[in-house]
Amino acid sequence: MSNATIDLLRSHRSIRKFSSQPVTDLVLEQILLAGQSAATSSFLQGATVIRVRKPESRQKLAVYAGNQPYVASAPEFLVFCADLRRAGNCCATYGKSFSGDYTEHFIIATVDAALMAQNAVVAAESLGLGICYIGGIRNNPREVSDLLKLPEGVYPVFGLCLGYPDQNPEVKPRLPLSVIVKNEVYEDSADQAPIAEYDEQVREYYRTRTGGGHGICWSEQVAELLSEKARPHMRGFLAEQGFLFK
Amino acid sequence: MSNATIDLLRSHRSIRKFSSQPVTDLVLEQILLAGQSAATSSFLQGATVIRVRKPESRQKLAVYAGNQPYVASAPEFLVFCADLRRAGNCCATYGKSFSGDYTEHFIIATVDAALMAQNAVVAAESLGLGICYIGGIRNNPREVSDLLKLPEGVYPVFGLCLGYPDQNPEVKPRLPLSVIVKNEVYEDSADQAPIAEYDEQVREYYRTRTGGGHGICWSEQVAELLSEKARPHMRGFLAEQGFLFK
Repeated sequence: MSNATIDLLRSHRSIRKFSSQPVTDLVLEQILLAGQSAATSSFLQGATVIRVRKPESRQKLAVYAGNQPYVASAPEFLVFCADLRRAGNCCATYGKSFSGDYTEHFIIATVDAALMAQNAVVAAESLGLGICYIGGIRNNPREVSDLLKLPEGVYPVFGLCLGYPDQNPEVKPRLPLSVIVKNEVYEDSADQAPIAEYDEQVREYYRTRTGGGHGICWSEQVAELLSEKARPHMRGFLAEQGFLFK
Repeated sequence: MSNATIDLLRSHRSIRKFSSQPVTDLVLEQILLAGQSAATSSFLQGATVIRVRKPESRQKLAVYAGNQPYVASAPEFLVFCADLRRAGNCCATYGKSFSGDYTEHFIIATVDAALMAQNAVVAAESLGLGICYIGGIRNNPREVSDLLKLPEGVYPVFGLCLGYPDQNPEVKPRLPLSVIVKNEVYEDSADQAPIAEYDEQVREYYRTRTGGGHGICWSEQVAELLSEKARPHMRGFLAEQGFLFK
């Protein structure tokens, strides 16, 4: 029931170490065209990609992303932005007033950026490249936006490192399907046992990996993540960019 | 420089008319496992899928989505939810207080749902199925959430119709790459001419399609979309579900 595309999808893992082989413009173009072919909400096409190649900019982005050196060293680094400005310009052309400050607009542009990025990722991996999403650029979104001259109506959702892999990490195990997929209604009362079993699998995954998470399991990792303040600057930053969550 | 996977990605179009051939459980499992293999922010795995098969529920969802009959008639209908509840349960297990009400949490769970969905879509299309995203479920998110018994910390991002195509629509043209991809910084001062050219392409696309958009171009469509109130209930609904945009 499987096929080469599904095998490819299921073999995804983040790559943070790349060979010196450059990504040609032709390869990058194929990746981005495939990205663009993803569905887009209401035909908005609400995503813009900034390709950053200048070493000074890449160094800065690596720092802004919380000191992730592969942001500087990856052959290519793309910043996927949610973009309502292009639509705003269309409003101006047709003499209409722009109302892109609803929560809904934030959702559709963010989802557009994500769908486009994931299609680009699949295309890249099908060509033998490896990738790593960089949510860390939201650590310092103001600095990132100033560097990339992002205007109002645009925000950087995540970055993407691209290049030919110089490492071959294991695929990270995922939660059992029974936990992720529910029939008819949301029902999680039977999830405890499969999650506990999964936690052991994740512990084992980290144990057998060099430099891994010291035997921490999924539940504990997620508990830590969700009990901390999460980038509390985001709301204010997004307001400055014109996303008002009306 | 292309390959079968990229050809597949680039041939995507929404399918709204499906043959009576059912999607077997095995096929659906492959699709969902491939979906799960997508990257997930901070290993959160913040997406849950509700598979809806009951005809009464499907009828209701079709109405809630703004009377889209294929939501009821598609062989399969999946609702992709952003899910912080599972992480909240982990906090409880480890005696930590849950703080999942930041804007950042909303972003990571929403992006997780979108990445998973897009991987599932690619897997589905690689197996010969067609799909249609249904953002329309956000027309009536309260009703959808009540029907699917979505608890606090969970919201329905979009639905997905799945089945074997019984139509063969054209691929919809996308904006020129020069408009979507920028080098080093955001710069749109040269976009007017390529967008005008693209608008003609879209007009032509609609002209040659039965039941098309009456020769409306992309710019005009987007101007209309962004000058209207966009699901103004979303913010209040999300607050009820525990997404506070702190």
